[in-house]
Amino acid sequence: MDEAIGLRVRPGVTWINVEGLEDTGLVERLGDHFRIDPLLLEDLLHVGQRPKVELRNEYLFLVLRMFTPADGNGEVRYEQVSMVLGGDFLLTFQEGQEGDAFDAVRRRLREGRGIIRDRGADYLMYALVDTIVDNYFLVLAGLSDRLEEVEDHILESAQTPAMVSALHRLRRENIILRKAVWPVREMIATLLRGDSPLVHEATRPYLRDVQDHAMEVVETVETLRDLTQSLTEVHLSLVSNRMNEVIKVLTIISTIFVPLTFIVGIYGMNFRYMPELALPWAYPAVWVLMAFVTVALLTFLRRRGWL
Amino acid sequence: MDEAIGLRVRPGVTWINVEGLEDTGLVERLGDHFRIDPLLLEDLLHVGQRPKVELRNEYLFLVLRMFTPADGNGEVRYEQVSMVLGGDFLLTFQEGQEGDAFDAVRRRLREGRGIIRDRGADYLMYALVDTIVDNYFLVLAGLSDRLEEVEDHILESAQTPAMVSALHRLRRENIILRKAVWPVREMIATLLRGDSPLVHEATRPYLRDVQDHAMEVVETVETLRDLTQSLTEVHLSLVSNRMNEVIKVLTIISTIFVPLTFIVGIYGMNFRYMPELALPWAYPAVWVLMAFVTVALLTFLRRRGWL
Amino acid sequence: MDEAIGLRVRPGVTWINVEGLEDTGLVERLGDHFRIDPLLLEDLLHVGQRPKVELRNEYLFLVLRMFTPADGNGEVRYEQVSMVLGGDFLLTFQEGQEGDAFDAVRRRLREGRGIIRDRGADYLMYALVDTIVDNYFLVLAGLSDRLEEVEDHILESAQTPAMVSALHRLRRENIILRKAVWPVREMIATLLRGDSPLVHEATRPYLRDVQDHAMEVVETVETLRDLTQSLTEVHLSLVSNRMNEVIKVLTIISTIFVPLTFIVGIYGMNFRYMPELALPWAYPAVWVLMAFVTVALLTFLRRRGWL
Amino acid sequence: MDEAIGLRVRPGVTWINVEGLEDTGLVERLGDHFRIDPLLLEDLLHVGQRPKVELRNEYLFLVLRMFTPADGNGEVRYEQVSMVLGGDFLLTFQEGQEGDAFDAVRRRLREGRGIIRDRGADYLMYALVDTIVDNYFLVLAGLSDRLEEVEDHILESAQTPAMVSALHRLRRENIILRKAVWPVREMIATLLRGDSPLVHEATRPYLRDVQDHAMEVVETVETLRDLTQSLTEVHLSLVSNRMNEVIKVLTIISTIFVPLTFIVGIYGMNFRYMPELALPWAYPAVWVLMAFVTVALLTFLRRRGWL
Amino acid sequence: MDEAIGLRVRPGVTWINVEGLEDTGLVERLGDHFRIDPLLLEDLLHVGQRPKVELRNEYLFLVLRMFTPADGNGEVRYEQVSMVLGGDFLLTFQEGQEGDAFDAVRRRLREGRGIIRDRGADYLMYALVDTIVDNYFLVLAGLSDRLEEVEDHILESAQTPAMVSALHRLRRENIILRKAVWPVREMIATLLRGDSPLVHEATRPYLRDVQDHAMEVVETVETLRDLTQSLTEVHLSLVSNRMNEVIKVLTIISTIFVPLTFIVGIYGMNFRYMPELALPWAYPAVWVLMAFVTVALLTFLRRRGWL
Repeated sequence: MDEAIGLRVRPGVTWINVEGLEDTGLVERLGDHFRIDPLLLEDLLHVGQRPKVELRNEYLFLVLRMFTPADGNGEVRYEQVSMVLGGDFLLTFQEGQEGDAFDAVRRRLREGRGIIRDRGADYLMYALVDTIVDNYFLVLAGLSDRLEEVEDHILESAQTPAMVSALHRLRRENIILRKAVWPVREMIATLLRGDSPLVHEATRPYLRDVQDHAMEVVETVETLRDLTQSLTEVHLSLVSNRMNEVIKVLTIISTIFVPLTFIVGIYGMNFRYMPELALPWAYPAVWVLMAFVTVALLTFLRRRGWL
Repeated sequence: MDEAIGLRVRPGVTWINVEGLEDTGLVERLGDHFRIDPLLLEDLLHVGQRPKVELRNEYLFLVLRMFTPADGNGEVRYEQVSMVLGGDFLLTFQEGQEGDAFDAVRRRLREGRGIIRDRGADYLMYALVDTIVDNYFLVLAGLSDRLEEVEDHILESAQTPAMVSALHRLRRENIILRKAVWPVREMIATLLRGDSPLVHEATRPYLRDVQDHAMEVVETVETLRDLTQSLTEVHLSLVSNRMNEVIKVLTIISTIFVPLTFIVGIYGMNFRYMPELALPWAYPAVWVLMAFVTVALLTFLRRRGWL
Repeated sequence: MDEAIGLRVRPGVTWINVEGLEDTGLVERLGDHFRIDPLLLEDLLHVGQRPKVELRNEYLFLVLRMFTPADGNGEVRYEQVSMVLGGDFLLTFQEGQEGDAFDAVRRRLREGRGIIRDRGADYLMYALVDTIVDNYFLVLAGLSDRLEEVEDHILESAQTPAMVSALHRLRRENIILRKAVWPVREMIATLLRGDSPLVHEATRPYLRDVQDHAMEVVETVETLRDLTQSLTEVHLSLVSNRMNEVIKVLTIISTIFVPLTFIVGIYGMNFRYMPELALPWAYPAVWVLMAFVTVALLTFLRRRGWL
Repeated sequence: MDEAIGLRVRPGVTWINVEGLEDTGLVERLGDHFRIDPLLLEDLLHVGQRPKVELRNEYLFLVLRMFTPADGNGEVRYEQVSMVLGGDFLLTFQEGQEGDAFDAVRRRLREGRGIIRDRGADYLMYALVDTIVDNYFLVLAGLSDRLEEVEDHILESAQTPAMVSALHRLRRENIILRKAVWPVREMIATLLRGDSPLVHEATRPYLRDVQDHAMEVVETVETLRDLTQSLTEVHLSLVSNRMNEVIKVLTIISTIFVPLTFIVGIYGMNFRYMPELALPWAYPAVWVLMAFVTVALLTFLRRRGWL
Repeated sequence: MDEAIGLRVRPGVTWINVEGLEDTGLVERLGDHFRIDPLLLEDLLHVGQRPKVELRNEYLFLVLRMFTPADGNGEVRYEQVSMVLGGDFLLTFQEGQEGDAFDAVRRRLREGRGIIRDRGADYLMYALVDTIVDNYFLVLAGLSDRLEEVEDHILESAQTPAMVSALHRLRRENIILRKAVWPVREMIATLLRGDSPLVHEATRPYLRDVQDHAMEVVETVETLRDLTQSLTEVHLSLVSNRMNEVIKVLTIISTIFVPLTFIVGIYGMNFRYMPELALPWAYPAVWVLMAFVTVALLTFLRRRGWL
């Protein structure tokens, strides 16, 4: 149990954080020691679990998804975090090896400041869940920034295929985030409704606060979804508009020059008997004809509103 | 506490309005004095909060979003407004510095007319919430006017890319408004359902009225959303229609003149042995041929319904 | 109170119908006389109210939207109708001046036939609400007829931009109707559930009937909405299909004649040393070449399935 | 009462089936005889009623829509069927004249086999409702077959406008079916929940079975709806794809031959002083130039991935 | 009863698995022996049943759809599985002949290891339902892999019509899966809520686990649906983008060469009196003119942002 970080929170309260789930032996030993249902141990080892809470008599079991705002190219990474809350202990299991997100809570604990030290294990659990939910906001802020960038690009008419893929990636990440956040609301609602003695009365206002934040995250996710949807349609409309412009130019050029080219083609024919060719005023007459045709076509195009 | 506008509403009732949240010291001193939960103080200082109500024993806590109908170019601005309602006091905290929206209520109070003076702090709270919800209508009216303008533009076929961006902006503002208004319904429902003694029986009909208005706002937001959606599709359809027209003209011109140009090209060739060239009736014969081809092609186009 | 039409329905039952809401003095005097809450008076004067019902101890308050099927060009008009039902009186307030919709009820009353005379004020209220809901069916039938007309036009491929605008107008009117009808269901549900002694047991089956009709209206509105949506997509598909046809013709013509024109162009060049030009069989050879090219291109087009 | 088909089901149980609602006198006499609420008689005469059930003390009233799978060209026909279930009688009213759907039940009754004869009127009602719901499956199977046909056509790229209309008709019929089936679920739920003594305990499992079937119909309707929606989008995508192909060929042909035609045009000019024309190697040089241009353009097109 | 595989699970517990439903006689004999309602026997023989559970006093009846991940070309196959759970027996009926999915459970039973042998028939039922739900994950993983493949193809711009059909097939299979999974949630909820003594307290945590898995499946189905939808729109956008590119090239080529070809056409005319033709500087002047026109057109195109 040496890899696990055991911290005495308060006399009688222990926090054990397991980073990485490779050492299933360790998890099993912890499960044995704290008498946790093997079914739940399986759930916490099997990543890709749906966020949920289970109220047992002696402990609470929580599964969540923790997002870490991506560093470089903006890809969102996430990992599963499971918690077991007992009367005097909190076990947390992180899928990933680097639990940077919990560092802030750990630091506050080590420095002995803040109210975390003065409260029970349930408050510690709240602090960690709060950190996870706050991270959702960071990820959302990243998505929102990228969406605005794409929005600017598209509205300034730089409709490169790259923008289409960027929009699709934003939608996909938003869908992933939504899948992680939706169940959090009902999870905390269960914690608040459930009469579990493990969640003290004093911790409830804090959980209600997390609940509000989760609601805010869900609504922002929906907002992003609607905006991305709208932007996808804007993109299609602008591409169509632009194609319209391009084709209009093609049509105008062709409409004017194709008939003229035909006219000059006529008098390029080599027939021996073409009386016009010998007339002295024929050449200027052709110019007049062509001028007339051009004006007629321009008038036609202008009437259609294409000029 | 000098920046705050303290107004004696009735013997024993105080209204303190804080404009701008920069002075966190002031907010904390107020919180201390009225014994408000630090968690709620944090909420009211942290702008971008989800609209909500919290019923505590000694006071009610409300967060709302106040929209100010944009002046010049129609961009909607909004700010967070928080309220703390006690038995004999009402604290309001505005994010922005210029609280013009509350001026009407303040004026009525100063002039000592209206029923606000004769009622308790809860009626004052109602009056302010009512002002905020009424402002939603103003914003909606602005959106609605702009939508109609865009509608006229699009239906009169002036499909400039500017219209596409205008539609997108309308959708975005509508989404923002919806996010602000949706929770207001449940907020007031909580106030009405909750048996808080802070909301007197006499104030309930007024709150029910605000509830009706909030419902009306929500439904109008949905209506605008559907109309914008429909208009986006109309725009795409009209652009396609128009492209169809443009391409049809291109096709008609090309279908007629490209074969004719080929024919005149044939007799422009310089072969020494081209028997036709020497025939006296060859030139008129080519004209007849071309007339025949033209009639055939026109018939073909007319049969397709393109002329 | 002379402009108001007062009709004794039965000994002790009075129906007062106010047409037009300009005379606020009259409304206030009526409100005073029947002791109606000023808040509700405001609601009934402020048109654009959401349909709703309010159960007070001494009276019921109802707001509805009455649609009048358009006469000429099919634009739907609507107005607000408010009702106050007391134990022995019914006040109705119409926004518009011409209350033709209520004429049928009035005539039945004047002629003294039907069961309206034998029942209380609540039955009269039912009869008026029933008239209003029946009018929704008339409006829906109009929308439905116009939709079918547009459907025929679109499926027969006359995709003029006028059809796009017509579809958009249908959608808009449907949205407006939906906004008016949705709350009616919950309104009547409130009347049926509420234990108000003002609604007698004998009137309930009739209200349940109106409820069924309102449900039917709501579902027909949804059906029209789905059909309009489908038709919008059909239109876009048909326009695309048709554009495809047009472009295919353009491509076929160009694919065949552009290479041929190039070939005849070659032998139109005036180089002094072009050995081919002097050969006696060159001209027929070019014809053979062109025939070969044409056959090759036709085969290519046929293989692509474009001919 | 001679037109009505009266069948003694069991001592004391009568089934009267009225085909066609033209003879309102007959319906009224039946209503009088079985003491049925005139409001319900109106409902059953007024076709286009929403499917519903009404529990009265002495009888049950049911309205349903019966679909008859179309014979020839696949158009779906439907009619209203109303039922009045009393303790010892069942009245059924069919809108249409030919009640073929009930024939199976009738035959079983006449032949005296099956359990229908041994049970009460409520079981007979179940058998008829079951027949109606089973007919929904037949209609759905028809829709499903036609959808598959359209699917095959579209995926094999035969995107004729006929397919677009076919898809629209499928959607419309699906919408009509959905409108008829949705209320059936709640109808039967009301029958099952309601403590009406008219529905015996022994009949409940059968009704639950019909309930399951109605659920299955509703879900299949939704599935068809999603598939049709998907297919509409597939069609649009394939049309766009195909247009892309067509335009690509046009562009390739034009990109290669339009510059070449310009080059040969140059040397077709008749200027007296064109030094190139006299050079012996000029003609082959032009061929080399054209070969070079062609290779350059083909490389360009290949790089774009258009060849 | 020899075709049926009868396995003694524990003293007093029997599992009979029927593979293939052709032998209706066998099913009826089993039904007789275990006294099962003929209505349910009909349900289990009639494949295409909606997943459901029925709680009877002496037994539970379950219908499910079991998916087998496709082997070769990725088409999903599914079959109906029905279960009847009594106090000391479990009957399972598979539509297909090859019940490979249950092999794992059977092997564990035969080898006498695992906890299945130590528990009652309800635990065995749980184990089978769990196997079925786990198979959904396999099918989903297959769909997900294929979706990613299509995604890569589409984003790398290989928009062949094959991708459109592939997307449509993915959507269809997802729809089929959703129809099978949705009812499972409510099914297990019924099992958990229902106070049936057939489901022991000890089995409930396991069922809750299956419930979580079913929720996860449902949410993944929704996620896939959203992703497919997004990808369909991405495809359309990219096709439009690409068509735009193609048409732009066509327009650029035509815009430049069509006017030039007209110019050279002019001087290809054979009029006797064309003063320009005799001028020595005319030919270079035409080149200058053409250079000028080309530059002007290129500037125009560059300003439009098309180059």
